[in-house]
Amino acid sequence: MAEFFNVLPPDEARAIWWAQVTRRVDVEMLPTHESLGRVTAQAIHSPEALPAFKRSTVDGYAVRAADTFGASDSLPAYLDVIGEVLMGQAAAVTVGKGQTALIHTGGMVPDGADAVVMVEHTQSFSDQEIEIHKPLASGENVLQTGEDVTQGAEILPVGHRIQPQDIGALLALGLADEIAVMQRPRVSLFSTGDELVTPDTQNLQPGQIRDINSGTIQALCRRAGAETQLHPIVRDQPDALYAALTEAFDDADMLVVTAGSSVSARDMTADTFNRMGAPGVLVHGVAARPGKPTILAVVDGKPVIGLPGNPVSAMVMFTLFGVPAISYLMNTALPRQNRMQARATVNIPSVAGREDHVPVKLVQREGEIWAEPVFGKSNLIFTLVGAAGLLKVPLNTTGLREGAWAEVVLF
Amino acid sequence: MAEFFNVLPPDEARAIWWAQVTRRVDVEMLPTHESLGRVTAQAIHSPEALPAFKRSTVDGYAVRAADTFGASDSLPAYLDVIGEVLMGQAAAVTVGKGQTALIHTGGMVPDGADAVVMVEHTQSFSDQEIEIHKPLASGENVLQTGEDVTQGAEILPVGHRIQPQDIGALLALGLADEIAVMQRPRVSLFSTGDELVTPDTQNLQPGQIRDINSGTIQALCRRAGAETQLHPIVRDQPDALYAALTEAFDDADMLVVTAGSSVSARDMTADTFNRMGAPGVLVHGVAARPGKPTILAVVDGKPVIGLPGNPVSAMVMFTLFGVPAISYLMNTALPRQNRMQARATVNIPSVAGREDHVPVKLVQREGEIWAEPVFGKSNLIFTLVGAAGLLKVPLNTTGLREGAWAEVVLF
Repeated sequence: MAEFFNVLPPDEARAIWWAQVTRRVDVEMLPTHESLGRVTAQAIHSPEALPAFKRSTVDGYAVRAADTFGASDSLPAYLDVIGEVLMGQAAAVTVGKGQTALIHTGGMVPDGADAVVMVEHTQSFSDQEIEIHKPLASGENVLQTGEDVTQGAEILPVGHRIQPQDIGALLALGLADEIAVMQRPRVSLFSTGDELVTPDTQNLQPGQIRDINSGTIQALCRRAGAETQLHPIVRDQPDALYAALTEAFDDADMLVVTAGSSVSARDMTADTFNRMGAPGVLVHGVAARPGKPTILAVVDGKPVIGLPGNPVSAMVMFTLFGVPAISYLMNTALPRQNRMQARATVNIPSVAGREDHVPVKLVQREGEIWAEPVFGKSNLIFTLVGAAGLLKVPLNTTGLREGAWAEVVLF
Repeated sequence: MAEFFNVLPPDEARAIWWAQVTRRVDVEMLPTHESLGRVTAQAIHSPEALPAFKRSTVDGYAVRAADTFGASDSLPAYLDVIGEVLMGQAAAVTVGKGQTALIHTGGMVPDGADAVVMVEHTQSFSDQEIEIHKPLASGENVLQTGEDVTQGAEILPVGHRIQPQDIGALLALGLADEIAVMQRPRVSLFSTGDELVTPDTQNLQPGQIRDINSGTIQALCRRAGAETQLHPIVRDQPDALYAALTEAFDDADMLVVTAGSSVSARDMTADTFNRMGAPGVLVHGVAARPGKPTILAVVDGKPVIGLPGNPVSAMVMFTLFGVPAISYLMNTALPRQNRMQARATVNIPSVAGREDHVPVKLVQREGEIWAEPVFGKSNLIFTLVGAAGLLKVPLNTTGLREGAWAEVVLF
């Protein structure tokens, strides 16, 4: 059968495909507050030191550490209180020998002082004098200038997916107005098939089914950080598919077609990809289950995918190829959160030379996470409802033994 | 010190707090395509059977299984081809004894037939007759009506966070127009402190720092599915804080104040929460590090949180209390993706009776995930930059040994 002339292991298929993908999304400027989950378009360096001044990490008294050497409950040190450091202001006092100033957490350590004694370790008899019961080392309870980050340091590398704490780090340095990030990839989605009707169709005729793949693939795209364009259902006619794809091509960074599951429908998809431009179809058939008849193509540097029509196969294959491609278009890797390790609850047989992706539920057992297969045909969408992700049975094994660790890619 | 009168373990603190939270967000109707990540407001039942008709799962010929009994390479069964089932149409033929019809994957199995033989197991000598080399069982390569889901079955429970495959399942059943989901909780964010200036301030005066907590907490809220309202910085004056909170109260489902880190700033926050209404402050101090001086309150059934001013403490405590509260307001549990198991790369000392949350990087070692602590003071936001999440050192241990499994909550 023609479509299986070139069945490749998934990792090899992805490498061959990506080698021809030259497309990258453009850069846009966004306010830092709106940059969560976006990918840095360039490395970002610190314009200043953080903190910009020496700060106290406790409520207490700013002191010269030397004045506290040897202090104890039985032999306290006595210091003169010369003032208070107000929050948000430069310290108005200079701490001399034998002197101290009241200070609050986050306050600016005044000149002369090099440590802060916690209020719990002092005793105050008047506004003018305190006892200190504990010796301090120089620098104790003080954040030094630049201790968080030094001026000029690289704070985020290029290709970094921005996390909540990164937003905090940028804001701390005054980098609030705008930041250069990669645009969201635009993915154009097509479903083909004479049997398909739109999902809002209420009275199905015999033989008709509703198009669900555009909805599931759209959701996977959005979760991966892409924008989507849903196109009308295309009938099983080569010229109609060619016209729809070429019309959408310029405004898309990636195109995805879910074809019917028959051989002729898949051949039509592959022929159309080749007709659109070079290099065309690079992979036609992947050594994976479910989803073997997947088509990976490149046209004019843009990734183009042909997915099987079965809803489970389509989701599995898009998770395997489409989701990482969205990150690739933004010059970054998959976020860590999409994968975890879990142990198989049962023996899972497989075939060497084929990578299996088994829908699983995750269950907790004595502090460990176990993956419990949800078996079902690849045509049954309810196989996936309730599944948390896909357990990978690696290529060169004949299966997983009960209790074996394996990777789960989460939906 | 007054604020530590009631230091509770985190789980106990959360239980006491939630017991008083009566607030739940309202229900809204959304198109199914736009419901990714939202929470179902009611259980959803299937209005029809899926598939709605018997479908072939292969390309081949629809047959009566009885006609193939005993078929083999040496003794094939011969059947008359009486037509073809076209995609998207009711089968126009009825398969009688000794007859068969060409059918494609997903096509409607015609009356009379109860199995489909794969084209690979047939030989065709003319358009009118095929040889079959393999016996079929009744039902082979056929999806039965209702095999995916039966009419009336519960397809999604109430309180379910909608995944991509769930969207597919709803669309398959024609539930495309609208679905009842919980609104996004509205979280009002306040930062207080005389030392704070807005993050876009370019020339800091000595003693000033930029407000970063509203940015990090906003990002955590958004990731958890909430909408946020950032309010102007509030000075350290009880009446100003009271006025700001009460003005925002009606339009918020939850309020979050990051206070300065000094004792007086925290006391002001707690006093203001109590002034706003009953029951007021329920927890003032959590047996956790970092973030001990966290305040959990309820006013008029709504959750109100006072976070420490240190950026690391604020993020850790909001991850521990605020993020789950957002799910709670939507009547659901945290998504599974927010947590994973990992092994400690080093011994991590702790103190029994205190739950430690250690920022960690995740590294892969021989197929397992290990958590490598990123040590740093809780004032240093760059401690968190690059960290993937927080490793939990449980309450009643004196630490984790190298190699021990523990839970990591991902940012």
